[in-house]
Amino acid sequence: MVNVLKRSFKSTPMKPRAKIKVGVLGATGAVGQRFVQLLQGHPWFELTVLAASQRSAGKSYAEACNWILRGNMPAHLREHVLVEGRPGVDCEILFSALPTSIARETEKEFAAAGYVVCSNASAHRYEEDVPLLIPEVNPEHLALIETQKRKRSWLGFIITNPNCTTTHLVCGLHPLHQRFGIRKLFVVSMQAISGAGYPGVSSMDILDNVVPFISGEEEKVEQREPHKLLGTLEGEKIRPAEFVVSAHCHRVPVRNGHLEAVSVEFERKPSLEEVMKAWQNYLPLPQQLALPSAPQPAIIYEHSENRPQPRLDRLAGSVPGMATVVGRLRSDAILHYKFVVLGHNTIRGAAGGSLLNAELLVAKGYLGEAVGEMAK
Amino acid sequence: MVNVLKRSFKSTPMKPRAKIKVGVLGATGAVGQRFVQLLQGHPWFELTVLAASQRSAGKSYAEACNWILRGNMPAHLREHVLVEGRPGVDCEILFSALPTSIARETEKEFAAAGYVVCSNASAHRYEEDVPLLIPEVNPEHLALIETQKRKRSWLGFIITNPNCTTTHLVCGLHPLHQRFGIRKLFVVSMQAISGAGYPGVSSMDILDNVVPFISGEEEKVEQREPHKLLGTLEGEKIRPAEFVVSAHCHRVPVRNGHLEAVSVEFERKPSLEEVMKAWQNYLPLPQQLALPSAPQPAIIYEHSENRPQPRLDRLAGSVPGMATVVGRLRSDAILHYKFVVLGHNTIRGAAGGSLLNAELLVAKGYLGEAVGEMAK
Amino acid sequence: MVNVLKRSFKSTPMKPRAKIKVGVLGATGAVGQRFVQLLQGHPWFELTVLAASQRSAGKSYAEACNWILRGNMPAHLREHVLVEGRPGVDCEILFSALPTSIARETEKEFAAAGYVVCSNASAHRYEEDVPLLIPEVNPEHLALIETQKRKRSWLGFIITNPNCTTTHLVCGLHPLHQRFGIRKLFVVSMQAISGAGYPGVSSMDILDNVVPFISGEEEKVEQREPHKLLGTLEGEKIRPAEFVVSAHCHRVPVRNGHLEAVSVEFERKPSLEEVMKAWQNYLPLPQQLALPSAPQPAIIYEHSENRPQPRLDRLAGSVPGMATVVGRLRSDAILHYKFVVLGHNTIRGAAGGSLLNAELLVAKGYLGEAVGEMAK
Amino acid sequence: MVNVLKRSFKSTPMKPRAKIKVGVLGATGAVGQRFVQLLQGHPWFELTVLAASQRSAGKSYAEACNWILRGNMPAHLREHVLVEGRPGVDCEILFSALPTSIARETEKEFAAAGYVVCSNASAHRYEEDVPLLIPEVNPEHLALIETQKRKRSWLGFIITNPNCTTTHLVCGLHPLHQRFGIRKLFVVSMQAISGAGYPGVSSMDILDNVVPFISGEEEKVEQREPHKLLGTLEGEKIRPAEFVVSAHCHRVPVRNGHLEAVSVEFERKPSLEEVMKAWQNYLPLPQQLALPSAPQPAIIYEHSENRPQPRLDRLAGSVPGMATVVGRLRSDAILHYKFVVLGHNTIRGAAGGSLLNAELLVAKGYLGEAVGEMAK
Repeated sequence: MVNVLKRSFKSTPMKPRAKIKVGVLGATGAVGQRFVQLLQGHPWFELTVLAASQRSAGKSYAEACNWILRGNMPAHLREHVLVEGRPGVDCEILFSALPTSIARETEKEFAAAGYVVCSNASAHRYEEDVPLLIPEVNPEHLALIETQKRKRSWLGFIITNPNCTTTHLVCGLHPLHQRFGIRKLFVVSMQAISGAGYPGVSSMDILDNVVPFISGEEEKVEQREPHKLLGTLEGEKIRPAEFVVSAHCHRVPVRNGHLEAVSVEFERKPSLEEVMKAWQNYLPLPQQLALPSAPQPAIIYEHSENRPQPRLDRLAGSVPGMATVVGRLRSDAILHYKFVVLGHNTIRGAAGGSLLNAELLVAKGYLGEAVGEMAK
Repeated sequence: MVNVLKRSFKSTPMKPRAKIKVGVLGATGAVGQRFVQLLQGHPWFELTVLAASQRSAGKSYAEACNWILRGNMPAHLREHVLVEGRPGVDCEILFSALPTSIARETEKEFAAAGYVVCSNASAHRYEEDVPLLIPEVNPEHLALIETQKRKRSWLGFIITNPNCTTTHLVCGLHPLHQRFGIRKLFVVSMQAISGAGYPGVSSMDILDNVVPFISGEEEKVEQREPHKLLGTLEGEKIRPAEFVVSAHCHRVPVRNGHLEAVSVEFERKPSLEEVMKAWQNYLPLPQQLALPSAPQPAIIYEHSENRPQPRLDRLAGSVPGMATVVGRLRSDAILHYKFVVLGHNTIRGAAGGSLLNAELLVAKGYLGEAVGEMAK
Repeated sequence: MVNVLKRSFKSTPMKPRAKIKVGVLGATGAVGQRFVQLLQGHPWFELTVLAASQRSAGKSYAEACNWILRGNMPAHLREHVLVEGRPGVDCEILFSALPTSIARETEKEFAAAGYVVCSNASAHRYEEDVPLLIPEVNPEHLALIETQKRKRSWLGFIITNPNCTTTHLVCGLHPLHQRFGIRKLFVVSMQAISGAGYPGVSSMDILDNVVPFISGEEEKVEQREPHKLLGTLEGEKIRPAEFVVSAHCHRVPVRNGHLEAVSVEFERKPSLEEVMKAWQNYLPLPQQLALPSAPQPAIIYEHSENRPQPRLDRLAGSVPGMATVVGRLRSDAILHYKFVVLGHNTIRGAAGGSLLNAELLVAKGYLGEAVGEMAK
Repeated sequence: MVNVLKRSFKSTPMKPRAKIKVGVLGATGAVGQRFVQLLQGHPWFELTVLAASQRSAGKSYAEACNWILRGNMPAHLREHVLVEGRPGVDCEILFSALPTSIARETEKEFAAAGYVVCSNASAHRYEEDVPLLIPEVNPEHLALIETQKRKRSWLGFIITNPNCTTTHLVCGLHPLHQRFGIRKLFVVSMQAISGAGYPGVSSMDILDNVVPFISGEEEKVEQREPHKLLGTLEGEKIRPAEFVVSAHCHRVPVRNGHLEAVSVEFERKPSLEEVMKAWQNYLPLPQQLALPSAPQPAIIYEHSENRPQPRLDRLAGSVPGMATVVGRLRSDAILHYKFVVLGHNTIRGAAGGSLLNAELLVAKGYLGEAVGEMAK
């Protein structure tokens, strides 16, 4: 069965001495399946642990998991036996696709016991000593790991990636913020159904419809995530960035790909050419390091007047689903500029975001012996 | 065959002495069909003329028209013979559903010849002496008719209704503008496919997709229509209102109903309760006059946190498809308040808008003898 | 808020002396809401009882029910207090929208206690002494009621209506079966999402997709329901009709309206004109009695080559959603003829079917004193 | 920009001495674009000619073509200059994506002038001396080429591939017909919108709808294509297979992938296991020859009770979009067995079908010198 997302991982200038064993917490759910899919054939990681609820533990993956992604479950994992998500499993990194309520305690247990937890859950995102990470945007926030381990007396640690809507918004804005400083930000999202998981949105609610409300979403975008991500590391904590955000969030009948209409005002108003150039010249750390899941380039500008569009562009770029696509840059009548941002919500916006975080950890030497010479 | 939009026209305090004969220009197209549908059983108007292109003239309506609205073509019109759209037809009012390019000349010919043209086309909307009318919003602009007839030496005249996106935006904002004065307006539209007519949007372009571009739409909303509609009659012309608008327009896979996310700043900032009260107490002229197609109330506030929604609310109100529905009023981080506006784009936003305009003309005595005592 | 399905009930030659009190079991669910909607303004019935689970009992309808139908919950029912579904409630007829597992016992309790239960659940459909009823098709099966009451020593009784897919299939075939006798039947259904209730089908499963499987559906159509419906009353039971059915059932991304492609072979092959005439001349009992919910005609033939279609035709007819629409009659290369059948699955195919059943009961005098002179 | 359909062409036991130059007729249309996409990186073919209408000739491909496939137009073709589709172009094979009306004459001109035309158009499909080819099904029909060239005194020749609906139906049935002989065939199609090209189906016609009619489609499936494909070569013509087909064709709101519900009766009734085994053991010529576009296996059986589904399975197999997927094999109450067939309509069902035809021509030595030793 074909995997349309199969990536031909390029040979990279560095790699770990041996493959690093990894596991997925919540492996049977929608995001869990995406982790499993993206880890197939990964050049650095070997998937050895599929963890699920007590109810599913002991069953084969094929038996316990209703695979909902295009194509079929990887054949070699069909008979893989699920374990309960508790420390003791044989791996170094755990990718967490757990629901928030369960993530809270489980992720702590793993971190305390010495595992590296790369979590897509929101449970720990806003804690002072937990990095909320986009490798292109704030790799220096990894310094919080030391603090986290020390304060909590943990052997391992937790890092997190942001909400799917925040991710692509901040990815698209980061090179502009670096140069011109965001002051005000207006964003209206049109979000895909897959953002609500599975079964998630009832077809009765969304066919021939738009729902102008997603619980908790506007708060995350307006008050928490962009500010932490674009914040400054000061000693042992992050000083949040200080711009103001107004967000309207909507669910639309699109399978994958969040589209966002953005208007922005800067500390100093750049020319339109300077904005374009900021995107074109953007070469952040993951792209410099040529991490396996880092798209080249990180941001794609689509020049057609009616792009980006979810169906056409959600898998754009050298690593499908990992790039952020922008377009329609033009002057704004109230703020400075407006444009459209698009990105895949369950790849870069969820599992793929965690995966790139883990790759950065490896490249920066946060996995101890495993990575050997590489991180120098 | 049922007409799900059948309206039970209420007895009104006034009515013309006899039914007024009306015609539809462009009767076979999507908007033309909507005119035909809405005129069924109208208490004041009798549809006597169906006009189409030269190619269709002479054919029966059933033969020439591919009826695309739910239900079937009104049975009594199936054998009605189409005429070419040229003066000489037996009616007083002509509703124009013509494409802009044809509307330009044809509407002028009719007006010159003494007909009253109520046009949904954009051809004459922006001319200085042509009213761009929403009866709830700017009925006093009808005074331009006198100027128009005099300057152009016409026996009849043209009035127009705005674009579908503008219509509901301005309907929702009018009571707020009256009291608090709009200064800045941010609007992001999610527009239904029917807004592009038939065949209009290819299914290949919109299934599982959002298109962040509609040709000419942002310009109309940002620069032309709201300003004229909310402008002030000064002598023989309209001084446009002076607020600033930023618009992002999108096409979404929804059949009917344009949804708009709106943020607004006023001359003086009202309390949230004052905004709510402005909507609740809104009783503009068409509702006072109890015009047949005037919804009671004109604006509906939906209190659920996830409403209005196109599928649930596009036909809301006492006259299906004629009301504007608002909801989710809350503070905005950049401007003063934000909320959601929804309305039916091919009823109030097109044919129904023209129809209500014609009813206002009748009620205000612009049709001469026909209306007799009524307009006193 | 408009009710687009509002029906203008015609004055009928008969009516009960006083309105009959009715209740809805499972009033908060999708089918329960449809019952509530269809009972608004009913000329014979007064909705006095809204019953729900123990968990919801005591709450207002507005509080306990997430209204999912177009428009809003009827305003006068918002504060109506829900009761638990147990005998003792003040009404004569109970419309059951209960899930099968609960329906089994609850419906029996009500029938034993003297209530008339008109059930949309499948729990008792296949029992020997329970009528499976379509008023147009097999009104004579009501004779089973006597047997049912006697054998079970019940004061009341249960009658049921068939599955949504069966209903329109059998409605469309009945006049043909009467005259020509069905021998073989091939049917492929394309079923709307609302057939699975709410939340029902996940949008992730059906957007841009067709699912070629609906649990238990093919069995009902192939082996159970059409045969009982078109069966012959012999003494105290029904001898099932003996034709053979092959069914393929599919879920498609359509909100309402099941479409079925049908091929049929008869005992004696009629001419194509005879088939058309059988449909045109069809005037079964409910239409003769002019029952309030009986569409006139019962079957509509659509002559366009590309009709019926769910969106255009699901509300066709004099009582929206109650008629069966057929079209595309033509010769079949294997059996005799083929054609397309369409009908609304949650109106005639569910709540509306039960409602018409109840009207027939009233008209035929099964409700004792209440109906007085009417049933003569 | 990623090509999600990028295929990793396997090294094959044979290949032409040098790449063969090929062209696309109608390169700007929907099927033409698919040809261009599938030819990227092809191991045997080099795309040298993009032909379009006189109106587009002379323009660059980027200028003249509105690319509608996911991802972007291949970058190296953006500046490729379009030529008019007339003999004289520099290539050996022409893939025709022309509309039927134009294909009729143009394809003949090319064939007469010595070119090999692999056509997706229906213009010549039913001519006695033109092969209608599926390489897995009837490679022996290539013998008609000799006849065609002789009778018409052409230097080149035309071969065609069937309609998208026929293709997967016949692919799925071929191994069964070989062993058990089809006698009767019932097929109901649910066809994707892309089958109608671009702009093709209006979104107004298909959103929230099913259209039970596709012009000319039932005739092709019932009377022409399956019979020729499964017919027997007798001397200089094909004796059509003699089974009877009944077809109902529908358009559904699915982007890609035609689903077909099939019931079949054989000359001799096999056991269910024999049917399964016929599919499992199927190893036709293109798979034996390991042609670059031949999926391995040709037919995939999906065991889940609710598969195949268009969204999940249309790209199944080793060469995305080229395999036929079957499932839900079970007994039929009227004929012998029933099952579901699914396949990609614009890949194997159109451009991909022509491409595989061309590969078979090369492998079998129909391209003269170019293929050198290979065809032994």
